[in-house]
Amino acid sequence: MKKPYAIGIDIGGTNTVFGIVDTHGHVVSKSSIQTNQYPTINLFIDDIKNKLDPLIEGVGGISNIEGIGVGAPNGNHYTGNIEHAPNLQWKGIVPLSELMSEKIGVPVVITNDANAAAIGEMTYGATRGMKNFIMITLGTGVGSGIVIDGKLVYGHDGFAGELGHVCVERNGRLCGCGKNGCLEAYTSASGVARTAMEMLKARSDNSLLRNFPIDSITSKDVFDAASKGDALAIEIFEITGKILGETLADFVAFSAPEAIVLFGGLTKAGDFIMKPIVEHMEKNLLKIWQGKIKVLRSNLNEADAAILGASALV
Amino acid sequence: MKKPYAIGIDIGGTNTVFGIVDTHGHVVSKSSIQTNQYPTINLFIDDIKNKLDPLIEGVGGISNIEGIGVGAPNGNHYTGNIEHAPNLQWKGIVPLSELMSEKIGVPVVITNDANAAAIGEMTYGATRGMKNFIMITLGTGVGSGIVIDGKLVYGHDGFAGELGHVCVERNGRLCGCGKNGCLEAYTSASGVARTAMEMLKARSDNSLLRNFPIDSITSKDVFDAASKGDALAIEIFEITGKILGETLADFVAFSAPEAIVLFGGLTKAGDFIMKPIVEHMEKNLLKIWQGKIKVLRSNLNEADAAILGASALV
Repeated sequence: MKKPYAIGIDIGGTNTVFGIVDTHGHVVSKSSIQTNQYPTINLFIDDIKNKLDPLIEGVGGISNIEGIGVGAPNGNHYTGNIEHAPNLQWKGIVPLSELMSEKIGVPVVITNDANAAAIGEMTYGATRGMKNFIMITLGTGVGSGIVIDGKLVYGHDGFAGELGHVCVERNGRLCGCGKNGCLEAYTSASGVARTAMEMLKARSDNSLLRNFPIDSITSKDVFDAASKGDALAIEIFEITGKILGETLADFVAFSAPEAIVLFGGLTKAGDFIMKPIVEHMEKNLLKIWQGKIKVLRSNLNEADAAILGASALV
Repeated sequence: MKKPYAIGIDIGGTNTVFGIVDTHGHVVSKSSIQTNQYPTINLFIDDIKNKLDPLIEGVGGISNIEGIGVGAPNGNHYTGNIEHAPNLQWKGIVPLSELMSEKIGVPVVITNDANAAAIGEMTYGATRGMKNFIMITLGTGVGSGIVIDGKLVYGHDGFAGELGHVCVERNGRLCGCGKNGCLEAYTSASGVARTAMEMLKARSDNSLLRNFPIDSITSKDVFDAASKGDALAIEIFEITGKILGETLADFVAFSAPEAIVLFGGLTKAGDFIMKPIVEHMEKNLLKIWQGKIKVLRSNLNEADAAILGASALV
């Protein structure tokens, strides 16, 4: 019989959040640590264990825990390792599953953060019951988790679903990955900020955004300005949504999903970004798919989504 | 116990070829008819049956036939129908599996032609034993069949894998599908001919291709000229291969395949096209995949490949 609780751990570049989740998808208790204050992975795991132990006792002890699911940058489901994550200080290949499982005494399953979000969405969120969908996470970066026939796509090596790094403009903006013109360089939160900077420099029309130092504008500032009716800010979301919508049409041609689910900070821009996304996706779809592909916003509680997604791995 | 033979039928816009295949992937007998001489689907199926009957007798009768696999344009695996195929004269939705199964008395499975090629390759060809690969067919059009975890991807509606219609140039060439800038408009046999036309018109350098009427140049003419060392013809393949290679890198980001297999007429151009494909795919891959993705040419006997692929459906 399956045990009544699972642990979800979301490792981010800055914070690591973790919690205990029941079978209904409720986070019953949670805690967090700062990822980057641990020079070695062993110290990191030791401290997670210290903070988890009382939470585990609170649900009746380790015998009630089915396992631990971890979402981590460059987490490889096949190997259980974090492999060459650029935003973490533990370099090379880190055998996270093995170390954590030894330390805590339950099975540990790992994947990257966008895949964890996709599994969370399928288990508890907007795509419950769907067998074919694509999750796109729009945060600092752009990530993706692809579900086909009810299963997450890992590919030959465990790294499938790097849709943030398809090319949307040849010889375009330099991306953090070293390539040029990646989707992530345009439709992430930082991509929106770059678009704002470029437009403010290239043009002279009035905008509330001119009240900020140009190099420190954030996607949140653009949203606030758009909410006040600022035309330039609204245009920035239209440009961003157009690029994303055009690219989503290509993703549909790949796996013919029932829905595309958008998750993360940028989706808070609501209709400012959702309307151009849907409009330009539709314009670029083959006729067989026009009007048929749902574009949804994640309905997971954002504070708990990462924990939920990771816990749903087990 | 599985029966010793299967029938493979490949329905093309011009010809329909069909044959009987044994369990080792040998076409033991075959025949063909002209697709477009039958005003109704029933007349078409009647005549296939007339030509198949003696072939079936030749292997001991219908009791030795496991089933019929059909590759057809817009063939939908889920419904068994040919749905709105632009290049066939039977319009709307044609319940091919149902009609053919009633007429011939064995189960009929249908899919589109590129998917059939992918299954043929996995069963008898270059990707035997591979669980994750992408088949790209480079013929009059560009088709694709995507295999993930050993299974063909059909998607929510049965139409997954339309990679010929991802956009490679916004507002680019008009494609037969009605969209602009599709991969198919550049890297199909007719795309190569269009590139030749455009370059011959735009430039004035000498070329063997100037010996042909400009509107009737084929990809075969370009290959023949390239084989004789014609610089312009070689450049046409380089441009074509660059576009395809760049786009393949995006496909890798989707499903992280072990290999990409190229099939169809254009692959006969050999290194003229394969070298730029591999070069530009590598340049555009994320570091985790560089040097790791095989680009293969199909090793199925082209004359029999379509029959083999279709037969492997059953």
